[in-house]
Order: sequence, then C-alpha cells, then structure tokens
Amino acid sequence: MNVTQKTQGLTKTPKTARGHKTLRLLLDAAAGEFGERGFHEAAIARIAQRAGVAIGSFYTYFESKEAVFRALVGDMSAQVRETVAPVILAAPDRLSGERAGIAAFVAFVRQNKALYRIIDESAFVAEDAYRKHYNDIAEGYAASLTAAFGRGEISDSDMTIRAWAIMGMNVFLGLRFGVWDETLTPEAVAKVAADLITNGLR
Amino acid sequence: MNVTQKTQGLTKTPKTARGHKTLRLLLDAAAGEFGERGFHEAAIARIAQRAGVAIGSFYTYFESKEAVFRALVGDMSAQVRETVAPVILAAPDRLSGERAGIAAFVAFVRQNKALYRIIDESAFVAEDAYRKHYNDIAEGYAASLTAAFGRGEISDSDMTIRAWAIMGMNVFLGLRFGVWDETLTPEAVAKVAADLITNGLR
Repeated sequence: MNVTQKTQGLTKTPKTARGHKTLRLLLDAAAGEFGERGFHEAAIARIAQRAGVAIGSFYTYFESKEAVFRALVGDMSAQVRETVAPVILAAPDRLSGERAGIAAFVAFVRQNKALYRIIDESAFVAEDAYRKHYNDIAEGYAASLTAAFGRGEISDSDMTIRAWAIMGMNVFLGLRFGVWDETLTPEAVAKVAADLITNGLR
Repeated sequence: MNVTQKTQGLTKTPKTARGHKTLRLLLDAAAGEFGERGFHEAAIARIAQRAGVAIGSFYTYFESKEAVFRALVGDMSAQVRETVAPVILAAPDRLSGERAGIAAFVAFVRQNKALYRIIDESAFVAEDAYRKHYNDIAEGYAASLTAAFGRGEISDSDMTIRAWAIMGMNVFLGLRFGVWDETLTPEAVAKVAADLITNGLR
C-alpha cells in the first residue's frame, strides 16, 4: 500500500517511487519491531536494520521513535480501512457487505498480528493517534450506514452508536478468532456475526 | 464488593471482616494509582498511602506490584460481571435484559474510568490476566445466551461467537460513550445498541 500523504508523524513526504518504497520498508520494519518488542524496548537502529536502509534514511522521514510510531498507527489504520471498505462496497448490498467485511477483517488480522499490540499500545504512547484511529473508522462506517439507510437497505437509528457497536464487535472477533485462535475460518466467524448484525438475536 | 477468594495474585485471603476491608481499601487505592500513573510509574508506597494502611499491610496481601496489579484486574473483572449480570438476569426476558445490561455497563464505566486503562495495560503487563478477563466474561455470556435459547427467547447460532461480538460492542460503547464523552445518557446508548442486538440492521 502506498503511504498516504497525510500520514501523521512524517517529517517529509516522499516524492519519488524510490522514496515511497523506502518509507514503506521503514513502516513495515517498524510494525515488526514495535509488534515484537513494544514501544519502550523498540530501537530506531533496529528498525533501519530490519528495513535494510541506512539510519540516515530513517531520519529523512522521522525525527524520533514516537514519530515513526505515530506514522505506523496512522498507516495501519489506513490499511484496515483500505482492506475492509472496498470489500463492503463491492457487495451487492450493505448486509451481505457486512459479512464480507468481517471476513476480510479477520483474515487481515491473521496476516497482521502486530496490529492489536500496536493499536493497543498507542492508547498509552500516543493517545491522540489511538482516538483518531477509532474515530476515523467509526466516522466512515457511520457515513456508509447512513448511505445504506438512504438506499432503503437498513432501518433508521443513530448511526454513530451503531458504528461504534459494530466496530467493537469486529475488533473483538478479530482478537479472539484472528489473533488468539485460528481454528475457525474467517468466513465461519463472519457468517454468525453478520447474521447477528443483520437479524439480531430474535 | 467483597474480594473473591479466588482473586489471582493474593498471597493470603483475608479471614476477618477487618482484613476484607483492608484488602478492599488496597484494591481501590491500586485502581486509583494504576489508573492515574500506569503500571510502570505506580508505586507500592503510594498505594498503601492512598489506602491509609501501613506498607506492612500491603505485603500481607501482595508480594509485589505485579501481584496487586493482577489482583486488581481480576477484581475489576468480577466487579463488571457482578454489576451487569444481575441486571440482565432481573429483566423479564433476555432481550430487554440486553438493554438494561448495556445501560448498566456504560453507567459503571462512568463511575470507574480507570477500568479501561487498567484492563488495556494488562495486555502488556499480565497478558494471562487480560485474556482471563475477557474469556471469563465471554464464557458467562455465552452460557446465558445458550440458556435464553433453551427458553425460546433467542434464535440458535454459535453462542461463543455471539458472546464475543456483543462483548466487543459493549466495550467500545463504554469507551466512546462512557469514558470519552458523557453527552448521551447510558439509556440512550443502550436503546440503540439493544435494538441492534435484538433486531439487527434490517
């Protein structure tokens, strides 16, 4: 994924394809380093080493460990949205989109297990980035629920509360059935959860 | 609330009413200290001071900062369950119980804002206690959903997946509308969320 031009924490936005590639390598290396060691034990030198770039390249883009951590939270947040949103939108209607979206999220988590540790740690290390991550997802989600209501696909209600509820559902299903235990397929988890979202417990 | 006999991290279970009271004071003081300062900055001496007990009393019950932190996670977990479960059970049926349970949880969070910081930090400091917290709640929840199915109050499905989904919903609604922003009443949040759980988006 290309790094968004609005990524927080970036000293400089890359202008060349090579610059984009270096930044991508640094963010992926940062995900590995922060995911394994946590913020406090992570080291800039090891991030550069994992990325296979000189430490000077690190400082071209980030001024500190906190800066790269913030950029990483924003990058992971964008990756989640860019993975799940198109899957929901590609579905024939919102309700089948929910199912596909949950499956895509659980599958994404299995490939990106550092996600939870990094987002959860951001609550302590960079709380504004933590709030922005969830607020951005919830806002996008509420907007798409409102659009689905406009198309007559779902009932009326407070879409912000619904968005937070469904986001929480996804986050916990991803933790339990993506990170902790991979016994069930993402589709099996999504089938039950989407049925709950669509039809409720009745 | 009385401290459960099975509280993790306890060196000794109090046998007298006075001992129970001291332990309760220590755990409440620990909630304040860990909630304000986080695990790494928290100090045993300050926990004892906040509790108004001698430091020797602290060591009667806990052998370390990690031990009191573990005990606190278990205690908060029990408080959540003991606050929400009776409210759900007192309702005339499971579905109205959901609504009352969500409102009770959001109200509890507003009175216990340290809850999120402490549970979230346990993912890093005492991951087994973190997992146990959510696993215990989900297990109890799944069992009560299975019972409600047995009474014909809800439809059949995988109750473990449903339990994790609804737990996640509650956790995120508590964060957003309990900790971050108190504009809405707990009942207003619960009305929308319970309608989602009951009837789905259709």
